[in-house]
Amino acid sequence: MASLDEGWADPARLYREGRRARMLLDAAREAAAEAVGCRADELVFTPSGTRAVHSGVAGALAGRRRVGAHLIVSSVEHSSVLHAAEVHEAGGGTVTQVPVDRTGAVDPAAYGAVLRGDTALACLQSANHEVGTEQPVAEVAESCRAAGVPLLVDAAQSLAWGKVPGDWSMLAASAHKWGGPSGVGLLVVRKGIRFAQQGPGDERESGRAPGFENLPAIVAAAASLRAVRAEAAEEAARLRGLTERIRARVPALVPDVEVVGDPVRRLPGTVTFSCLYVDGETLLHELDRAGFSVSSGSSCTSSTLMPSHVLKAMGVLSEGNVRVSLPPGTPPEDVERFLEVLPGTVAAVRERLGAPVATEAVPETGGDLVVDAIGRRCPIPVIELAKVIGDVPVGGTVRVLSDDEAARLDIPAWCEMRGQEFVGEEPAEKGTAYLVRRST
Amino acid sequence: MASLDEGWADPARLYREGRRARMLLDAAREAAAEAVGCRADELVFTPSGTRAVHSGVAGALAGRRRVGAHLIVSSVEHSSVLHAAEVHEAGGGTVTQVPVDRTGAVDPAAYGAVLRGDTALACLQSANHEVGTEQPVAEVAESCRAAGVPLLVDAAQSLAWGKVPGDWSMLAASAHKWGGPSGVGLLVVRKGIRFAQQGPGDERESGRAPGFENLPAIVAAAASLRAVRAEAAEEAARLRGLTERIRARVPALVPDVEVVGDPVRRLPGTVTFSCLYVDGETLLHELDRAGFSVSSGSSCTSSTLMPSHVLKAMGVLSEGNVRVSLPPGTPPEDVERFLEVLPGTVAAVRERLGAPVATEAVPETGGDLVVDAIGRRCPIPVIELAKVIGDVPVGGTVRVLSDDEAARLDIPAWCEMRGQEFVGEEPAEKGTAYLVRRST
Repeated sequence: MASLDEGWADPARLYREGRRARMLLDAAREAAAEAVGCRADELVFTPSGTRAVHSGVAGALAGRRRVGAHLIVSSVEHSSVLHAAEVHEAGGGTVTQVPVDRTGAVDPAAYGAVLRGDTALACLQSANHEVGTEQPVAEVAESCRAAGVPLLVDAAQSLAWGKVPGDWSMLAASAHKWGGPSGVGLLVVRKGIRFAQQGPGDERESGRAPGFENLPAIVAAAASLRAVRAEAAEEAARLRGLTERIRARVPALVPDVEVVGDPVRRLPGTVTFSCLYVDGETLLHELDRAGFSVSSGSSCTSSTLMPSHVLKAMGVLSEGNVRVSLPPGTPPEDVERFLEVLPGTVAAVRERLGAPVATEAVPETGGDLVVDAIGRRCPIPVIELAKVIGDVPVGGTVRVLSDDEAARLDIPAWCEMRGQEFVGEEPAEKGTAYLVRRST
Repeated sequence: MASLDEGWADPARLYREGRRARMLLDAAREAAAEAVGCRADELVFTPSGTRAVHSGVAGALAGRRRVGAHLIVSSVEHSSVLHAAEVHEAGGGTVTQVPVDRTGAVDPAAYGAVLRGDTALACLQSANHEVGTEQPVAEVAESCRAAGVPLLVDAAQSLAWGKVPGDWSMLAASAHKWGGPSGVGLLVVRKGIRFAQQGPGDERESGRAPGFENLPAIVAAAASLRAVRAEAAEEAARLRGLTERIRARVPALVPDVEVVGDPVRRLPGTVTFSCLYVDGETLLHELDRAGFSVSSGSSCTSSTLMPSHVLKAMGVLSEGNVRVSLPPGTPPEDVERFLEVLPGTVAAVRERLGAPVATEAVPETGGDLVVDAIGRRCPIPVIELAKVIGDVPVGGTVRVLSDDEAARLDIPAWCEMRGQEFVGEEPAEKGTAYLVRRST
């Protein structure tokens, strides 16, 4: 509020309001740099975390053009990183996506192994935005240093909680993710990193972020980062206790749930789980009616009809996906009420969809079976599969026909959860045929 | 303030805070579109006016790549337009700069004459940001329509006062210029204009402005545009009276002043003048001490040591340049006090610099003269010239040696103001030699 009154002027001007604005900007940069752990002249403010990532990736790739045009990203990066990689690929560059395990983490050795002589830039998030899993940034940074490749860390998810460990080269973050205002990101480029700003620039922000500085928001961003950091250790421990409770209780309270993400190396306030036989959009709306604002990586909540690329890369169930983010200050009572409300809500959604009940006894009959789920959206294909699996003998197969992209992820994930064998997929006359062999 | 409380959520989310954010965003878009005079789905919010210009120019040039790579701008556009043009030229495109007359306006016929078969985009500001001169946008838009070339109007300076006239194709503006918050620009692309967003995008703002929307600022921007428009007609008339008074009184109160910009076709609240024999930076600091925050296009206030490209394109004096911007609500008493303070302030600066007094009688002597002003900065070269002009006979010449870029503009401008003949310039052993013949 104070910076709205004091910080409206142009810091490039010589009159007193401009000089005061310049002082506020310099002080905000010092404060942010201290929180990040870099020099003030290595840090510029951008209009968003997304813009910081876009400028950072483009500038580093251009600055190291002579080295080569190879870019490395993990498969679970934020869309801003993946979009920047797509643009690089469309322009003739090459991109390697490093896969993740079922917890969502990259293997540092696997990451190190794809570094090449022509690698211009490597990107790795500090922690995942959908499932909360922390990445082994320090180890990967060490491999990158050894190979002479700069590592850009998307620290949007973790900067509120502390400095990013390790000897990284570039860093991007977003103020609204640490509880600051919208309209501010930050981009850090360590001294010595070759960087060539792309697109038109101007004299502001070291030529790396053109346009009038959003000074009130920048000042508020720096102040809020200081404020959250002052309480970070204590609040992280408290929130970790609350998310630990959700991780432990949800599978006990709700049948057929998969909690995803690393159980230990994770963000304090994020917990994600997927519910079999549930339509993510309906579940979100029901939880919203009960007063809970959660997100989902299910395809049935997205306009693209594609499940979250993160869940896909992890190979975990996407249907009925729920992401709970506890902001600092969340009272334990809210978590308890969520745990009270969730089981009934999931059960109601399942009942409406005609999902199989876990205890249902199905008579065994002979022969192979075909389930035609063409034109049916997630979670119906999995529900139909679950309904008939008991109709084939052990060793028999069910062939599920589906044209829903979510099935590609959710049918194998269901097999893994249920101990059934996923044989494979093949193109069918319409959509894709997924072959499942009954094992138990 | 209300939108800081209500508008923090992600409008892409399905929960209630997200839906409310989406409604606020939609309402802001409707309001802004109405003020601009376009359809809501033609308008996106960007992080600044500069970013709107950069995206607009790049997107239109890419969208019409098949037509050609010719871009037209006026020579007095905002630096954001000129920077975008530089990038286009560096990438192999061609750029035509349309010159302006001494008032700062382009000639619509001259603008129309440079439209070519391979012109992909034409740009013209609605009014100039340094001298306030309005451009003949409607006439230029008509020529562009006839030639099938989209016209992008940088309306940053004028949108507070009303809709941009004429049948333009694209428009950019900046909220902080109309009294709204920092961090918001807008880009309008009329339906039917070929546009290909460059760089990484995402699903936000029709794919034309990636990154988390700065919703509180967007809402405040739309509200403030409505608010200033409600009082625009009345306030414009009032401010026009005040700037008219400055335009009339300054030359009467201060000797050797040139008021620049069109006296009639101009912004209501902007007035710019240049004072001979004055160092712009010192004058600004003295006015600042007296409580007046003004800007300057003099090279002695810029880190580049180059005078404003606008004053240069107009061919007017740049030394001692002062730009007075009256924000809405400026009381007449402030203007009167400025007029009281200015003459003494200018006189004091001139005295300190040893400037010639207007009434000084200089004895006539024979022969040509050389003034060595190498290493001396604006306004010293002009001051030294003025001191010796009386020492040569009518018809005699003074040769001024200077390595200050401002001299290139200010010596011819001084000649024009003083009725002396500017013969020309030529490279000298150090710097440039400017030849002036005494006419009176």
